[in-house]
Amino acid sequence: NRNYAISVIPGDGIGKEVMPEGIRVLERAASLYGFSIEQKWQDFACCDYYAKHGQMMPDDWKAQIGNPDAIFFGAVGWPDTVPDHISLWGSLLQFRREYDQYVNLRPVRLMPGVPCPLAGREPGDIDFWVVRENTEGEYSSVGGKMFPGTDREIVIQETVMTRHGTDRVLRYAFELAATRDRKHVTSATKSNGIAITMPWWDERVEEMAKHYPTVTHDKYHIDILTAQFVLNPDRFDVVVASNLFGDILSDLGPACTGTIGVAPSGNINPDRTAPSLFEPVHGSAPDIAGKGIANPVGQIWSAAMMLEHLGEADAAAAIMRAVETVLAEPGLRTGDLKGKANTEQCGRAVADAL
Amino acid sequence: NRNYAISVIPGDGIGKEVMPEGIRVLERAASLYGFSIEQKWQDFACCDYYAKHGQMMPDDWKAQIGNPDAIFFGAVGWPDTVPDHISLWGSLLQFRREYDQYVNLRPVRLMPGVPCPLAGREPGDIDFWVVRENTEGEYSSVGGKMFPGTDREIVIQETVMTRHGTDRVLRYAFELAATRDRKHVTSATKSNGIAITMPWWDERVEEMAKHYPTVTHDKYHIDILTAQFVLNPDRFDVVVASNLFGDILSDLGPACTGTIGVAPSGNINPDRTAPSLFEPVHGSAPDIAGKGIANPVGQIWSAAMMLEHLGEADAAAAIMRAVETVLAEPGLRTGDLKGKANTEQCGRAVADAL
Ligand SMILES: CC(C)[C@H](C(=O)O)[C@@H](O)C(=O)O
Ligand SMILES: CC(C)[C@H](C(=O)O)[C@@H](O)C(=O)O
Repeated sequence: NRNYAISVIPGDGIGKEVMPEGIRVLERAASLYGFSIEQKWQDFACCDYYAKHGQMMPDDWKAQIGNPDAIFFGAVGWPDTVPDHISLWGSLLQFRREYDQYVNLRPVRLMPGVPCPLAGREPGDIDFWVVRENTEGEYSSVGGKMFPGTDREIVIQETVMTRHGTDRVLRYAFELAATRDRKHVTSATKSNGIAITMPWWDERVEEMAKHYPTVTHDKYHIDILTAQFVLNPDRFDVVVASNLFGDILSDLGPACTGTIGVAPSGNINPDRTAPSLFEPVHGSAPDIAGKGIANPVGQIWSAAMMLEHLGEADAAAAIMRAVETVLAEPGLRTGDLKGKANTEQCGRAVADAL
Repeated sequence: NRNYAISVIPGDGIGKEVMPEGIRVLERAASLYGFSIEQKWQDFACCDYYAKHGQMMPDDWKAQIGNPDAIFFGAVGWPDTVPDHISLWGSLLQFRREYDQYVNLRPVRLMPGVPCPLAGREPGDIDFWVVRENTEGEYSSVGGKMFPGTDREIVIQETVMTRHGTDRVLRYAFELAATRDRKHVTSATKSNGIAITMPWWDERVEEMAKHYPTVTHDKYHIDILTAQFVLNPDRFDVVVASNLFGDILSDLGPACTGTIGVAPSGNINPDRTAPSLFEPVHGSAPDIAGKGIANPVGQIWSAAMMLEHLGEADAAAAIMRAVETVLAEPGLRTGDLKGKANTEQCGRAVADAL
């Protein structure tokens, strides 16, 4: 059965503008590759549902979303009216947890046509994955305040790591590395300073590595690892990291390849006990929202990752070829990449290149 | 009284090799600028004190160090024999806390002669300070393990922020910005994800900003901030951050300017209730230790920061001029900067340029 039920959540700001282009390319791919997409759109966003109801989603959001094969997500956030921690914990971060999307997967790849901020790097030089733990760790909601409003005020937030949660993401990283040419895992740690959780993380990495004798591994403290992303980005293959460290590395990596505006991400439940969610790395970008100039490639690349996850590998690969063709052409790419196209023109160009 | 008592702790690895050059330049500066340096050396290191006694420092280390005007520190760490979290918590991290060195101050500056990994940047383009909270936050020792050794294993580590500890480092950052041309503070946050401590951090920044009407300020989430260090490093003036975020940014910043091997840092007690500590950013570098090829400029630049702190601003400025002269000269700089000198030759060159 190649009919896929997709929950579509465009969100706020440029999320609303790039989503139609993602859908355009998805539909074109469906008709070309002989599958179909059934869409159910939701208005779970600051400027829609929240504006009307004072919360990000209805109490029965799970029932309303139903049981789709995947969630196609734009970007949520509108800090002028809703503080970010309210909007994000009320949607994206809630999906990650409640749907147990325990892997956040992001490519770091130097693409043709995308100006690289690092000196002397060419497409092909940089090509690795960041595998981020996506449900626990530093993003816990455990903690609180003492003596609020006084000089003695103390605020505490707990990082919580479980063997269950850590081992499964490490396993995913080693499995992924085993399928690649270089078969190498780099672990992000900070065991010299964060002296309770991180030495334990290192131990779990060593344990997991024993099961993958063909995969090599090393580790870097997060401070020097960010430096290595800038100085030696060609040395990485699969980088595995805790929730916070993965968050940092998966913005820094795309920045080093100049692709922060075009990078995608998958919030993946590898056990398929609930839907996975695919979204561009960029956020809702209030500063450029409403102008129709946002780059739709992050949303489109996310569509390719989603199709890959759904088993439509040929269509996914075709989309990526179309993306590369369009990025290489100044007349077809958007202004952030010194191109001339607007959001819709760029999206149509990718659909046509398909 | 311009006689300064300095506690000298060279530490491990290349710390031992660069320290004599730091001292050489200090002594030369003293004789040229009419002050004197009284040194007390300590062997608090993995390969010395720990090797003999099984701990990093004697129980009465404070008494042994006495009451110096400053501590001049090389680098501690030898992971082959002592795990990093033992060696660091037993020395450097302990000094920071027990001497209440609540500011970690690091320059990010593009220097002549240092190849910049970012495309199209020139000396003068990048020149800012990272002000890192240095005693609390994510580097707490509070937490522990449940169900150890079982599948249900859980590890918890608490981030602890106090108003006392946060406000004083924010104040330092705003005071520093007020002395500079651009008068701008950037705060590193992650209030969209780390939803207890970081929204509170943001509030404290807003409160502090009210006292500095001539200083502008903004904030970035740490993920996109690391990206901005790569994409727009010229936009920063003073960046203030929590302990962990500051750790990351103050390695990434020097990496973006290519200066990780030459960058210094000050662990500063601004209230002068205890000695401050000055050290290069690079660590003990076991991989190149013993070869006499390490770059001594980080240690020498740290000497300049120390003299500035001691009130010898003219000597500090002269050392920086000498460093710039030497860095610009391939025959005088070390191999990591594609130069021809070894550690001692480079150190002598700086002393002579003085
Ligand atoms: C060695 C390590 C514990 C230390 C830190 O994380 O503070 C270092 O990275 C630094 O920045 O001084
Ligand atoms: C918006 C924010 C909460 C989110 C995160 O920190 O996870 C984002 O930065 C991301 O990486 O998806």
